[in-house]
Amino acid sequence: MDRILSNQNSRVKAWAKLATKKGRTENKTYLLDGWHLVEEAIKAQAKFHAVMATEAQMAQHLPDVPHGVPAFEISEEVAKHIAGTNTPQGIFAEISLPDKTFDPSYVHDGAWLLLDKIQDPGNVGTLVRTADAAGFKGVVFGEGTADAYSPKVVRAMQGSQFHLEVLNGDLNEWADALTANGLPVYGSQLDESAQSYRQVQPSTQFALIVGNEGQGMADELAAKTTANLYIPIQGQAESLNVAIAGGILMFSLAAGN
Amino acid sequence: MDRILSNQNSRVKAWAKLATKKGRTENKTYLLDGWHLVEEAIKAQAKFHAVMATEAQMAQHLPDVPHGVPAFEISEEVAKHIAGTNTPQGIFAEISLPDKTFDPSYVHDGAWLLLDKIQDPGNVGTLVRTADAAGFKGVVFGEGTADAYSPKVVRAMQGSQFHLEVLNGDLNEWADALTANGLPVYGSQLDESAQSYRQVQPSTQFALIVGNEGQGMADELAAKTTANLYIPIQGQAESLNVAIAGGILMFSLAAGN
Repeated sequence: MDRILSNQNSRVKAWAKLATKKGRTENKTYLLDGWHLVEEAIKAQAKFHAVMATEAQMAQHLPDVPHGVPAFEISEEVAKHIAGTNTPQGIFAEISLPDKTFDPSYVHDGAWLLLDKIQDPGNVGTLVRTADAAGFKGVVFGEGTADAYSPKVVRAMQGSQFHLEVLNGDLNEWADALTANGLPVYGSQLDESAQSYRQVQPSTQFALIVGNEGQGMADELAAKTTANLYIPIQGQAESLNVAIAGGILMFSLAAGN
Repeated sequence: MDRILSNQNSRVKAWAKLATKKGRTENKTYLLDGWHLVEEAIKAQAKFHAVMATEAQMAQHLPDVPHGVPAFEISEEVAKHIAGTNTPQGIFAEISLPDKTFDPSYVHDGAWLLLDKIQDPGNVGTLVRTADAAGFKGVVFGEGTADAYSPKVVRAMQGSQFHLEVLNGDLNEWADALTANGLPVYGSQLDESAQSYRQVQPSTQFALIVGNEGQGMADELAAKTTANLYIPIQGQAESLNVAIAGGILMFSLAAGN
């Protein structure tokens, strides 16, 4: 097994570049940080390009890494450099970005979450993880939403990208196609003139749109929905965090929760 | 008005120290960053020790600052230093820490959130903000929970500390006292043997305990509750983020949401 001890090593430089959208797009790969995510990728039969681990992590996990995957032992310093954090667990994988095209006109069932310009990577990743827990079939990232494979989003998704569809798409097209296919499309608004989310019966087939932290949903999208839903605020808080609002709506709207 | 241009200024050093628990405890004050929070503190008639703002922010907001509050014009560099971030809005206030003792044996009504060793400051602040939005009367920070007045918690609370009670307390004492006073005390567990949260009727008088991100609630606390509640997970996610789980439970349990 190759041992890599320097941040100047060309492979290390390439892995560090995967923290940027440009680096990921050029390589068509992204990084997983920590055994939990690597294990999820193994279970999901993701396409591995490399596994990199410190001596201790490699000793513990190499037996579980699929045969034929190039393995590299790295120093603690290299681990910190690749992770971009000071306390990485010390095991990473480089795997292929999903190469999926998905035509919403073929979507006839399931619960779908549509993210309209959600900017904070922690919010985006948490929304995907919560959609997974609520039994959603997929999450569609509209233009302006944080990239699904950036390190902070990947960390917050906690492996949920392997459990449901994670797609990029034009949310106007999605809203039109799902509506045409008979799925109700619910928007969310911070506006008491919208309908209370409590009035919607739980269902297994619908779409929910959550919008930008500051501006909310785009007006064009809000005009296309079956209904726009509102979470009544009882106290003096002006609004809810978008991931909290999304979580409350998803668990209330999806049948079975 | 004094103008402060150097990070070496003794006042600047003192403000920067308020980012630490030690600094806050010694000074009995904490920092607010951004006009939204300063305005909330004015509305709440908090005790101000100082307002610090860049030239532009001072010109815009000084007329709204209460009379008699010492005001300091600061440079952009000083603003970044005090904020500990690179893009502060440029207006701050130093205000008194609340000086409250609160005996839970006098609590006979309202909805209360108890935080058992929640470590991530973003989660803690978001939970307080969500409790505010759900109409809760107070949040009790148990030992091991992130400090309510650390910069990241203050940012995530978005001023909700001025809308409800934010207290430190011994959660075992709180659970005992509330139970003795006839309020149901609900725990939360990631355990299908617990009761589904859907089976609890919404109410205006109860306590909800949420526990540590990794370990959940302490066993000793879980043994004291009226019931421990469980959010059924439909997909393959192993768990929910603690702030999301808390948000779903608070909005489901509190009458009126």
